[in-house]
Amino acid sequence: MTKILIVGGVAGGASAAARARRLSEDAQIIMFERGNFVSFANCGLPYHIGGDIKDRSKLLLQTPESFLARFNVDVRVMNEVVGINRSEKTVTVRNTLDNSEYVEAYDFLLLSPGAAPIVPPIPGIDNPLTHSLRNIPDMDKILKTIEMNKPEHATVVGGGFIGLEMMEAFHQLGIKTSLIEMADQVMTPVDREMAGFAHQEIRDKGIDLRLGVALESVEYIPSDSVANEDAGESAEHQHLCGELTLNLNNGESFNTDILIMAIGVRPETTLASEAGLKIGELGGIYTNESMQTSDPSIYAVGDAIEEADFVTGNPTLVPLAGPANRQGRMAADNMLGRNETYQGTQGTAICKIFDLAVASTGKNEKTLKREGIRFEKVYVHTASHASYYPGAEIVSFKMLFDPETGKILGAQAVGKDGVDKRIDVMAVAQRAGMTVEQLQHLELTYAPPYGSAKDVINQAAFVANNIIKGDATPIHFDEIDELSDNQLLLDVRNPAELENVGYIKGSINIPVDSLRHRMHELPKDKEIIVICQVGLRGNVAYRQLVNNGYKARNLIGGYRTYKFSKA
Amino acid sequence: MTKILIVGGVAGGASAAARARRLSEDAQIIMFERGNFVSFANCGLPYHIGGDIKDRSKLLLQTPESFLARFNVDVRVMNEVVGINRSEKTVTVRNTLDNSEYVEAYDFLLLSPGAAPIVPPIPGIDNPLTHSLRNIPDMDKILKTIEMNKPEHATVVGGGFIGLEMMEAFHQLGIKTSLIEMADQVMTPVDREMAGFAHQEIRDKGIDLRLGVALESVEYIPSDSVANEDAGESAEHQHLCGELTLNLNNGESFNTDILIMAIGVRPETTLASEAGLKIGELGGIYTNESMQTSDPSIYAVGDAIEEADFVTGNPTLVPLAGPANRQGRMAADNMLGRNETYQGTQGTAICKIFDLAVASTGKNEKTLKREGIRFEKVYVHTASHASYYPGAEIVSFKMLFDPETGKILGAQAVGKDGVDKRIDVMAVAQRAGMTVEQLQHLELTYAPPYGSAKDVINQAAFVANNIIKGDATPIHFDEIDELSDNQLLLDVRNPAELENVGYIKGSINIPVDSLRHRMHELPKDKEIIVICQVGLRGNVAYRQLVNNGYKARNLIGGYRTYKFSKA
Repeated sequence: MTKILIVGGVAGGASAAARARRLSEDAQIIMFERGNFVSFANCGLPYHIGGDIKDRSKLLLQTPESFLARFNVDVRVMNEVVGINRSEKTVTVRNTLDNSEYVEAYDFLLLSPGAAPIVPPIPGIDNPLTHSLRNIPDMDKILKTIEMNKPEHATVVGGGFIGLEMMEAFHQLGIKTSLIEMADQVMTPVDREMAGFAHQEIRDKGIDLRLGVALESVEYIPSDSVANEDAGESAEHQHLCGELTLNLNNGESFNTDILIMAIGVRPETTLASEAGLKIGELGGIYTNESMQTSDPSIYAVGDAIEEADFVTGNPTLVPLAGPANRQGRMAADNMLGRNETYQGTQGTAICKIFDLAVASTGKNEKTLKREGIRFEKVYVHTASHASYYPGAEIVSFKMLFDPETGKILGAQAVGKDGVDKRIDVMAVAQRAGMTVEQLQHLELTYAPPYGSAKDVINQAAFVANNIIKGDATPIHFDEIDELSDNQLLLDVRNPAELENVGYIKGSINIPVDSLRHRMHELPKDKEIIVICQVGLRGNVAYRQLVNNGYKARNLIGGYRTYKFSKA
Repeated sequence: MTKILIVGGVAGGASAAARARRLSEDAQIIMFERGNFVSFANCGLPYHIGGDIKDRSKLLLQTPESFLARFNVDVRVMNEVVGINRSEKTVTVRNTLDNSEYVEAYDFLLLSPGAAPIVPPIPGIDNPLTHSLRNIPDMDKILKTIEMNKPEHATVVGGGFIGLEMMEAFHQLGIKTSLIEMADQVMTPVDREMAGFAHQEIRDKGIDLRLGVALESVEYIPSDSVANEDAGESAEHQHLCGELTLNLNNGESFNTDILIMAIGVRPETTLASEAGLKIGELGGIYTNESMQTSDPSIYAVGDAIEEADFVTGNPTLVPLAGPANRQGRMAADNMLGRNETYQGTQGTAICKIFDLAVASTGKNEKTLKREGIRFEKVYVHTASHASYYPGAEIVSFKMLFDPETGKILGAQAVGKDGVDKRIDVMAVAQRAGMTVEQLQHLELTYAPPYGSAKDVINQAAFVANNIIKGDATPIHFDEIDELSDNQLLLDVRNPAELENVGYIKGSINIPVDSLRHRMHELPKDKEIIVICQVGLRGNVAYRQLVNNGYKARNLIGGYRTYKFSKA
């Protein structure tokens, strides 16, 4: 009889427990959770705060009782594993209700402790109106603060998934909201120019978005309880009432009624490192491809671990639910004698930002540059489905690939419709080792309500292959502001578009459909930089020019990419 | 200077013309179209009739003038190519306005004539109220008939894409509609049991759906023009007014005010066969992987041709816009000296049927059986995104695979949300040669509004791999009605579910969460057929049973698959 102990009862731990029981009826399985809740929907917490998920109980996917009934798993909530004795193969467990301790032996131990919100040591940050959001009690505290303090203004620090979701939650509750992000962009899995679409959307919704600034200190100003509160209010109520003054590193200050710190998470490694397990260079628990730690009897999964990056094979930290669930299942397989190997993490991610979806898979350009990996890129902006059918929205799509082998390195997309689908397609193609040459041949679902005969992905592949085959000489948005005297900007859109959408100062305007007759107006000794709205007409003009002996380059992704890179 | 003639100016022909010009500025390109319109959105026609696409001009993507201005292509509408002289490398062209003829020489000829609606020789079918729908004039005639005859009842014969879309169009116009299909299902790219979901949806919307019957004869009853029409009405008006009596092969008859024949299409091969080009065994123009016909100077693309099936490599006819567009582009490449090869057609398809999407890629079970290809299958019914987030809908998903190699053979999905995405994922995975083992590892976009940590596809892959590894012994819906005395049905749902959703007569009911304590009630000498709603709890129960020494099989896809197979 195999005895399996599991530390942590959410995504990875719960998946492992259920799978282990399906594989073995007689294994003894004990799952320890220091909190009060197992298997809750942590990805749903911001949506309950914002009111999209009305019923709190929907977040509680399983209870200790349901786990016992269905999977015969002994779930011990309010039980924290505080030590591992590897030579004895035992753990010490503290009952957090009465602080008593006991020892439990294991054949295999699975660590699934997750990651904790990083709260930087900012002066004044420890106050009753400042919160992180990781679990049900955090959520309940935030809801209580909203109920009690009735905030008119909220501030979120950090423009990652949770920060963006909390920003939207506050906005949905009718609370004026500031979002503060130290970097020059939100949603760092995508590159800066793709984040521009998100910045525009965030500002359009009336959010006070502040990029490139940091919170320096916080002052808590409790309400005057006599003036603001009825007599007889509870101490807790009074405690939650007041406001905060936030001081930023650019010298600005403003007041807010609730503050959410969401600058990131850090793997929970205390237990592992105290037990002498290897910690990786990025600060996560080291695991091999079987999800084993440096101790073969101890497995680890989820947000706490370092795993292999799919593209580079280097260690990476990816605190996302999908990998955690699959790793948990696989760890159970391996603890019970199977031989499953984890095949690397692409970091596929998506975030809803008001009406937009922002998503990515694989490596972004920032990382490729930092790691010195050769790449080329293309941008397309194409309708999510047949443009003549109602409801089509532009998908803005970026694809990164190796210009010699055509290997897919990563992809990013932003838009109001069909973004998840395009990134899923790219995640599969990348995992399968496809090249951008092969992407041209993809046969995706097409009917007017769903797609186009030449899908976004086909189109991006056409552009990429034109570059690889020398049929297109690209220029990118980040080179446009630094042209030399030997280069000349040619905008091939219609004059009305330039007026309505904007244009780059100094460009000549010849609409593409007049170019054949007016080509003689252009000099043959300069490199002509062709610009249109999204790059498609630009390519037609570019081909005309080079086929007529001109030197030319086409702005990939057109004016739209250029414009939003500055948003 | 290369001279390229193109026969047909819609998807394949137009794509080829544009691509050819981008590759060569000095090629002479002439495109012949016997109709009045080039590059129109033929997939949009039913949606204009139904009113989703309000503006008719949105269907006209290009005009001869716009093609000339942008691509310097000489577009000759109302010019029909009526003969090919292969030894001279010329075509004979008839001007359909004045019936004059002329000869045009080519270096390369591209045939993109499309496919024509099949209208069977049914007595009485040739009447003013009966229409097919292939092009703009057809659409205009249907609209005119609706306007003039003000139908209260419409009939569509044929349950394929166009038939289903026309059914929905009529319904949307408030016209009572009958759909007649000779087969026992609509939407033949999916298997019968998956079509059941569509049948339910169609009937729920009040359509008179008649499966397994054929139209035998039609009687046209013109209106009494004196009684029904104002004096002075035009002859045309009177001509379009009246009704039809439809006689079916089951002896039934009913009257209708407009009839659409949409039983399928037949490749337009007259020109090709008269020129002695090879016609394939399925009746399409033979092409090799370069899109060349049996004459290397003549290429052919689109609905008129036979191409290679992606899975089997055998010839196939796939009259869909996606392949046509990509083939056209590729033919242009090859005519201008490139060396592109077409990589087979999966037949990825999708159709909107009211609120449902029905989609598929690869081979269906019917075809696999007919061709004697070894397969196993799984069904899952899973939420389109996190079930606790609003708007989640069930995706009913079928996957066909080789039980020994795990190779993906095909996939089908039906549901109100996220169907296109799942079939796109499968289309990419299949094209990349992935196995169902690899599908387990797919890392798809997940946030509560978009997906689940374990996506539909991951779940289907888990089930498939359980079967391959012997962790699950499946039984399928089509075996349930023919169990032997040595088998016993065990329904592990809750009693309330059985009452609300239905159940299979004769089954024992032990809810999964009580099974461990009540297992002794079950006999060890019989094979226990476990049933739940979708197969998930069934698997938990199945594992408990076999791990306790029982013989068992789990109904893959559960009661839901069984139930809708009869719809």
